Amino acid sequence: MIRSHNFSAGPSALPIEVLEKVHQELFDFAGTGSSIMEISHRSVLFKNLFEKIESDIRDILDIPENYKVLFLQGGATLQFSQVPMNLLNGKKKADYIHTGLWSGKAIRSASRFCDTHIVASNEMTGFNHIPLQEELNLSSDAAYLHYTENETVQGVQFNYTPNSSVPLVCDASSSLLSKPIELNKHGLVYASAQKNIGISGVTIVIINEDLFNMAPNSTPEILNYTSLAKANSLINTPATFPLYITGLMLDWLISQGGIAEVHHRNKQKAGLLYDTISSSGGFYKNNVID
Amino acid sequence: MIRSHNFSAGPSALPIEVLEKVHQELFDFAGTGSSIMEISHRSVLFKNLFEKIESDIRDILDIPENYKVLFLQGGATLQFSQVPMNLLNGKKKADYIHTGLWSGKAIRSASRFCDTHIVASNEMTGFNHIPLQEELNLSSDAAYLHYTENETVQGVQFNYTPNSSVPLVCDASSSLLSKPIELNKHGLVYASAQKNIGISGVTIVIINEDLFNMAPNSTPEILNYTSLAKANSLINTPATFPLYITGLMLDWLISQGGIAEVHHRNKQKAGLLYDTISSSGGFYKNNVID
Repeated sequence: MIRSHNFSAGPSALPIEVLEKVHQELFDFAGTGSSIMEISHRSVLFKNLFEKIESDIRDILDIPENYKVLFLQGGATLQFSQVPMNLLNGKKKADYIHTGLWSGKAIRSASRFCDTHIVASNEMTGFNHIPLQEELNLSSDAAYLHYTENETVQGVQFNYTPNSSVPLVCDASSSLLSKPIELNKHGLVYASAQKNIGISGVTIVIINEDLFNMAPNSTPEILNYTSLAKANSLINTPATFPLYITGLMLDWLISQGGIAEVHHRNKQKAGLLYDTISSSGGFYKNNVID
Repeated sequence: MIRSHNFSAGPSALPIEVLEKVHQELFDFAGTGSSIMEISHRSVLFKNLFEKIESDIRDILDIPENYKVLFLQGGATLQFSQVPMNLLNGKKKADYIHTGLWSGKAIRSASRFCDTHIVASNEMTGFNHIPLQEELNLSSDAAYLHYTENETVQGVQFNYTPNSSVPLVCDASSSLLSKPIELNKHGLVYASAQKNIGISGVTIVIINEDLFNMAPNSTPEILNYTSLAKANSLINTPATFPLYITGLMLDWLISQGGIAEVHHRNKQKAGLLYDTISSSGGFYKNNVID
């Protein structure tokens, strides 16, 4: 079997073990005589699968008890709107760190709902580095502070967790499950699944229960974090097959040694790349600022 | 291979030919050395697949030129809110036919955005029949008229297309692709895919272009039909694998003889059931009113 390398934007490659498992049980999931694609999301079998997925991700990321995990649809892009639709709590302003294309989209989406205060932007220097904590011009009256952990287009990533007196919201779409995350410092973390957590069609939201019951009545129930949490993310039919793949990815991640081992491998891979750049005699340039 | 029958609510069974095709090309889609799950939604290959899906559904349903087809996420339940978020056009009221559980949910969702005028309801009689056209107490100042073509919980289905002077909106979640539909009479038709159009994770919206540019600025771009149409449904990463299954379902449907043949088979299946009821000497009761 020839397997291509995938250096593409968009969906990432899956471990071959995950594809092999899908292939093996495609026609008959757990002795049901049905494919996982055909099974009711209200069945005991799916309920057990869904509970295992939540339990596994809680273990892997060491998610505190007072945080709820939601499995949604619509991608990070829907979260760009869903965050302000839920978390403004009557306030008129939210703080945003502008570090590149993705945070720019989050800011543009939020501006339909509130004033977006840019606490730091490196647009003038082509988004070539991440602002330091002391460079953040934070508001005390903001509903939350939003940042994009990894700007995949500009190639800049936070090497620290921002501090703020208001709830911290993180778009961790390309980095969740690639390394540990300090969840206790965050109010809400969201990520689309297609990088490290499966395939497109699943969005993970990890939310501190303190942020429940803040949404105005104009927020649809299907987009309301509190309602979604009460229904265990099952207000309606979820994307069952993509969720199943998330489950297999978590199984694989655990089998590999969990987040510590994956983080170790990712640092090794990045090291190979940066060593090549550093030893290229200036042919490749390295803008890493530690 | 033992294949179970599926009489369950929720996701339906898939044709074995569809599962066999998935199984066959799971590791290597179109000679790429990658699974369809791993391929970028911005690649030429996926773009071609996506265009074929749209072209096939247009052929199968005979969709007029002035209607756009959108492939979205979030299920019919998100459409319950997305419809009023897009189609109120400055009006304060929308007409709804209340025929059972699903239309009830649509009404409750819309009531966050406008007055919902119930033009007919059979709640008092346990939703045991569909109101006739002449029983509809239609408003002339409503933004649109919404109906649920098939109420799967109460077991009642429209045998006519309602007439109204305002745009007609149809939740066709459980019946789209099971029989022909008079699209010209509709402003918008939506359906989740997991009954006849694939698996959960895809929502189809068929919309008359006359209904574009009506959404207020408060409607997020990712939920705005006009913006979604301009971006060919690709504002962000779609649920690529469920879309691929929709493509295979459409291939299968065409191979079987299209919508006419499928409708014929469905009438035969329903006939078997109703004949059994009718010949049961009153043991089973039949509430069908023609």
